[in-house]
Amino acid sequence: MAELSRIGLAGLAVMGQNLALNIAEKGFPISVYNRSPEKVDETVERAKLEGNLPVKGFHDAKEFVHSIQKPRVIILLIKAGPPVDKSIETLAAHMEEGDCIVDGGNEWYENTERRQEEAKKRGLLYLGMGVSGGEEGARNGPSLMPGGSYEAYKYIEDIILKVAAQVDSGPCVTYIGKGGSGNFVKMVHNGIEYGDMQLIAEAYDVLKSVGKLTNQELQEAFSSWNKGELCSFLIEITADIFGVQDDKGDGCLVDKVLDKTGMKGTGKWTVQQAAELSVAAPTIASSLDSRFLSGLKEERMEASKVFKSVDLGDGNVEVAKQTLIDDVRKALYASKICSYAQGMNLIRAKSAEKGWDLKLGELARIWKGGCIIRAVFLDRIKKAYDRNPHLASLLMDPEFAQEMIERQSAWRRVVTLAINAGISTPGMSASLAYFDSYRRDRLPANLVQAQRDYFGAHTYERIDMPGWFHTEWFKIAKQTKI
Amino acid sequence: MAELSRIGLAGLAVMGQNLALNIAEKGFPISVYNRSPEKVDETVERAKLEGNLPVKGFHDAKEFVHSIQKPRVIILLIKAGPPVDKSIETLAAHMEEGDCIVDGGNEWYENTERRQEEAKKRGLLYLGMGVSGGEEGARNGPSLMPGGSYEAYKYIEDIILKVAAQVDSGPCVTYIGKGGSGNFVKMVHNGIEYGDMQLIAEAYDVLKSVGKLTNQELQEAFSSWNKGELCSFLIEITADIFGVQDDKGDGCLVDKVLDKTGMKGTGKWTVQQAAELSVAAPTIASSLDSRFLSGLKEERMEASKVFKSVDLGDGNVEVAKQTLIDDVRKALYASKICSYAQGMNLIRAKSAEKGWDLKLGELARIWKGGCIIRAVFLDRIKKAYDRNPHLASLLMDPEFAQEMIERQSAWRRVVTLAINAGISTPGMSASLAYFDSYRRDRLPANLVQAQRDYFGAHTYERIDMPGWFHTEWFKIAKQTKI
Repeated sequence: MAELSRIGLAGLAVMGQNLALNIAEKGFPISVYNRSPEKVDETVERAKLEGNLPVKGFHDAKEFVHSIQKPRVIILLIKAGPPVDKSIETLAAHMEEGDCIVDGGNEWYENTERRQEEAKKRGLLYLGMGVSGGEEGARNGPSLMPGGSYEAYKYIEDIILKVAAQVDSGPCVTYIGKGGSGNFVKMVHNGIEYGDMQLIAEAYDVLKSVGKLTNQELQEAFSSWNKGELCSFLIEITADIFGVQDDKGDGCLVDKVLDKTGMKGTGKWTVQQAAELSVAAPTIASSLDSRFLSGLKEERMEASKVFKSVDLGDGNVEVAKQTLIDDVRKALYASKICSYAQGMNLIRAKSAEKGWDLKLGELARIWKGGCIIRAVFLDRIKKAYDRNPHLASLLMDPEFAQEMIERQSAWRRVVTLAINAGISTPGMSASLAYFDSYRRDRLPANLVQAQRDYFGAHTYERIDMPGWFHTEWFKIAKQTKI
Repeated sequence: MAELSRIGLAGLAVMGQNLALNIAEKGFPISVYNRSPEKVDETVERAKLEGNLPVKGFHDAKEFVHSIQKPRVIILLIKAGPPVDKSIETLAAHMEEGDCIVDGGNEWYENTERRQEEAKKRGLLYLGMGVSGGEEGARNGPSLMPGGSYEAYKYIEDIILKVAAQVDSGPCVTYIGKGGSGNFVKMVHNGIEYGDMQLIAEAYDVLKSVGKLTNQELQEAFSSWNKGELCSFLIEITADIFGVQDDKGDGCLVDKVLDKTGMKGTGKWTVQQAAELSVAAPTIASSLDSRFLSGLKEERMEASKVFKSVDLGDGNVEVAKQTLIDDVRKALYASKICSYAQGMNLIRAKSAEKGWDLKLGELARIWKGGCIIRAVFLDRIKKAYDRNPHLASLLMDPEFAQEMIERQSAWRRVVTLAINAGISTPGMSASLAYFDSYRRDRLPANLVQAQRDYFGAHTYERIDMPGWFHTEWFKIAKQTKI
């Protein structure tokens, strides 16, 4: 009988193939399986081409499962939802007590928690493991967010420590916590990613539409930004994008790309969870709304005709390019801090609700490499939570607070410039409103609460004495009028 | 045996009491019931005092049910969720085939749909009926949004047509549609209400904090606004509020009210459903976030110290009060149009998903009176949908579009003024960003889609030819760099 594999992987779309090859390359013999067999053969072929990697392909589920050493670990990289249940059904039929299932998809955390219970009944261990980094990350080192059975985590720790991206502070993986925490953290990671992408798009828009920067100037600006505080994968690829010529016509390819953004669900979940947990996350929400509005291309084209007479007066002012580039950089960075503060607060709120005891600084650390939001900036977030694990908000960290103070004037200039030019910066302006609300000891919420007490007798508190009060506003106002 | 009542009502908190008295006053003998009997006696007592109204009180569920003529109709006004299930269990035990249950609470529409199915199994008819207008509306004429069994609706139509608020275009009630549509429409109504209240609070904040208006000047401003395009219940009560003196100290009561806003769940649901249905609703979302941030009073007080060195330069400019009042009025109105456009689009999206065939103009009509968002403006919305039932967005109605065009300069002035003064206007700025995104034929979403294709091979469309494309951005950029 052939030697058994250390681990198995089922679901061989590009992500699955790449993760399997990554695991094999790190010296762990791996069995692979897919419902449609051609993907299996493709993976085995790639394993040969990419260095005779120890990958064994199987067309039969039972043979696949039995080719793995006990306790068996099978990673699933399958479309989230019912297909995962189906695959578990197929594979678990051949698995034995003590074996482990690791779902690497972008799964809704409650589905993972349900499956953990079901797996337990079969005697199986279960992990929901967020995998970030796209195809490239999966192949060369992703950020991994495994949550669920600690026993299962320990059993595959040697593998994932090597497979994950490696940065100065270690491999980009840690045991996240119990239950569906791995999926939840990955979900918020994706929400933050939505926010980052939206903010970058707004920076691009202001520089292009107001600053009249060419694509080459944009590439230069983003390349220079990538040497400073904004240094990150997304800024880097943005600079790259501006340099790609259209292979089907003249000019830059980015100008030919239709302005419609797709999405897959994790951004939506993040926004819904923020509402559920009473955490304001307007920057992330604005990125989701912007994707929705981007989808209404035909409607927007109609609307642009209806509103073509909008008079922006002297909105299209001349601006000095370098000053604008610096201002936009500061606005982007300040907005980004707000967005991460929202994401971290969301994770903390969920952790408290579920008793997951998540370590925010450690999460920032494992996002430093491998994943889409990887950035130098994350090391600073990690340090902020190292300094104070109970930080109420990233905005309250002395270093970040100082950075906000230094950038807020530029931020206000950019947002007002955009408004006067008729260019929407929903993410930057929502972030600024968030900042200005957060740092305000007195908000106009007193009026809202007075209104609620007026029409619904919802009562209110007072600033000068404890207790709950109700006033017959209507009667008093009526008397006063007479 | 005593004469039977035409209808019954269970759940005698203030809303329930008031609705029962309203029904009785319109000439329909009503039986009332409550789990804690003192509320029953209180209601019967009030019925006597308020004009010997035909209200019979019951302490026993069976007697209560049997006191109603067949087919029996029982309206529930009970805290949404499990208490409703419990009450149904108690009452349905004594009900017979063909009887009707009408839930008047702010229930999650899916709970109503589940109960409709359960009721059907018992042979009972079921309506989920949104009731808006607070205590005062319940007593003197609410806006009613009944959805579910059309047969049940027809059976109580004579009652609710009289009980509802009466406006120039008829009673503020209509059969909304099948399933949980009545609850869903009420939920969005509440979301819109959140938005209205937030926008008013921002107008107050700008006038008070930037314009330095006194409470008396604020009262005058809101009173004058209530004579024009903004004429509405919420503007009216806001003017009233500024006139109420503190009975526990000097000055106006509104200044003593703590700036923390409570909430009950419908706003949250609205935001979550908007995300679910891919409808951008940033104005409504900003109102929810503002309530969340208002709740962080202690944290905000700390943050205000950390950020006290924020330098706003010449942000605190002198402004002519009357000009500012006019500008803020226009900003409020334009933002409000955006908010209603979002709410209506949300209802339309759900209607399409569920096949409810909801009539948006008719919904605007029944909100003209009775409810918290009642406003002259709603008649204009009704007319916009009368003109074009397939209107893509309220913003696209020629009259509203013209109003937006006329107000956008003032709107930009107000939002930029607030930004420069460090005052957050999350609702107004989110609305403005929504407007500017919506009327833009080309958004920077092309960059986001290019990024998605770069790191995730998500493909993109082009502006100049059909089809889906994928580019090896990384490889090309790398080659170019070399």
